[in-house]
Amino acid sequence: MEHADTLGSVGEGGVLARIFPRLPSAASELLGPGDDAAVVAAPDGRFVVTTDMMIHGPDFRLAWSTPFDLGWKAAASNLSDIASMGAVPTALVVAIAAPSDTAVAFLERVADGFREGCEAMAPGCGVVGGDLSVSDTLTIAVTAFGDLEGRPPVTRSGAGVGDTVAVAGVLGAAAAGLRLLFEHGVREPGSLRDDPLVVAQLRPHPPISAGVVASLAGATSMIDLSDGLALDARRVARASGVAFDLSRAALGSLDALTGGEDHSLLGTFPGEVAAGFRAIGRVVEGDGVLVDGEPFEARGGWDPFADWSGEAG
Amino acid sequence: MEHADTLGSVGEGGVLARIFPRLPSAASELLGPGDDAAVVAAPDGRFVVTTDMMIHGPDFRLAWSTPFDLGWKAAASNLSDIASMGAVPTALVVAIAAPSDTAVAFLERVADGFREGCEAMAPGCGVVGGDLSVSDTLTIAVTAFGDLEGRPPVTRSGAGVGDTVAVAGVLGAAAAGLRLLFEHGVREPGSLRDDPLVVAQLRPHPPISAGVVASLAGATSMIDLSDGLALDARRVARASGVAFDLSRAALGSLDALTGGEDHSLLGTFPGEVAAGFRAIGRVVEGDGVLVDGEPFEARGGWDPFADWSGEAG
Repeated sequence: MEHADTLGSVGEGGVLARIFPRLPSAASELLGPGDDAAVVAAPDGRFVVTTDMMIHGPDFRLAWSTPFDLGWKAAASNLSDIASMGAVPTALVVAIAAPSDTAVAFLERVADGFREGCEAMAPGCGVVGGDLSVSDTLTIAVTAFGDLEGRPPVTRSGAGVGDTVAVAGVLGAAAAGLRLLFEHGVREPGSLRDDPLVVAQLRPHPPISAGVVASLAGATSMIDLSDGLALDARRVARASGVAFDLSRAALGSLDALTGGEDHSLLGTFPGEVAAGFRAIGRVVEGDGVLVDGEPFEARGGWDPFADWSGEAG
Repeated sequence: MEHADTLGSVGEGGVLARIFPRLPSAASELLGPGDDAAVVAAPDGRFVVTTDMMIHGPDFRLAWSTPFDLGWKAAASNLSDIASMGAVPTALVVAIAAPSDTAVAFLERVADGFREGCEAMAPGCGVVGGDLSVSDTLTIAVTAFGDLEGRPPVTRSGAGVGDTVAVAGVLGAAAAGLRLLFEHGVREPGSLRDDPLVVAQLRPHPPISAGVVASLAGATSMIDLSDGLALDARRVARASGVAFDLSRAALGSLDALTGGEDHSLLGTFPGEVAAGFRAIGRVVEGDGVLVDGEPFEARGGWDPFADWSGEAG
């Protein structure tokens, strides 16, 4: 029966033949799968590249993430890193390692998540190559590429005193969704799946196109908020040699500072903030992160080096 | 004590600070580690990309591979995929996931292997970015990039009837080395480490620069021999709609056909073979692989989907 096919029973070649048609194609692809390497267009003579692994356990739980969620989220988190440089995502390569008893249908749904995620967040971006292996630990490694279209990259080191600090996307929702999943048990999340906070955790929808908009609007620094606003803002402040003074009123709640995996964009703007961004503070002299002028020290965020227990699934 | 530091005790940031200085730098790097993504030069408006994961178990055993070997071999196998397209390797991104009790010193030696491997096989190529995660299964995912310098890529589909089939690099040595390691036990390989066959298995030295030489000499097809000459030759023959008739006398022994992980280059040439290549056969009408005109059906090679037992370490 087809639904009983596994990675081990069908083998690498057979699984790839079933996965390839489901993957999104890339407008930038000059030579696609079928050779030892792909060839991708880099029209301005440079390309932006980021790589990120999602590991079963530290990074996701099969108790609540569907395979579709995994493909979508792996795409989203990498696309967001490209966007934060002010680039347009052009292509991905995807390496998946899975236990040999993994159902082929599971891997097909991962591919569907990549396809629908790319179509929704970065149309034209697709998968140009990959690798499929067996492993005791389900692992999804994505490398993503982007095109700067002739612009300089927006780095972490350019924030200037007097700039407005602004964010595109939601703050704290993914962390709140993770708390809901932990509190309500892992085996039967049931209707929790439709909760917007849970959706923000399992299937985030970062504002990818806002990255280019910010670059065109003159953003002086930008970062993808993956580890919580406070921690990531501190990184930009350190790289730029300044401090970020955030407004508690603009943030709404301090939870916005400590939640991880927002995959929103934090940028600084010397003039008006870009469309899609909202002001949450100002760049000042000093170091670290302040809230209403007072130092804010809490770390927050999701720590894969501390928070994983294999027993929870 | 510093030598007792682990990934879990030092944390991602601390480990990265110790690893970065050991990694090779890339001449193509326009913006390196420290931002959400790197920026790499692609002078001819395209880049070549390949990705490959090495998984503890199916792909390597810690019983006989040192961490230095792992970094070197991960570099070698990816560089060889870039070379087989006729491209010059320019950069790598490296994602490593390891158990939290992994010694930082182990990860430093992996970095040393990447550095010395790149310096020996592809000077100028370096690591421009990466990711470090915790996982129950040690996993090294590499994505490699190359520059075609204005030339068309050499694919698997261009072999023409009458072309000479030729190889650069050794055949069968890595597989023979693997047999030695299995036969003589996994815990104390001892002086086996200096055996040239074992070196070919643990720390292969593919002829990376031969890829560009082949392209300049007019190679019509090329492939990196990762799964054994017979299987990989069959792939090129199928993609090109031809057969490869190999000469047993030129091969020396049939073992050359079935050993995996050679990471030598197989190319086809309408005229003289490129410097560094030796003729082993001819492209003829038909399909599949022949030896002295007789069909050769054996698969050979190392099958990660069949050959792994966790107990062997």
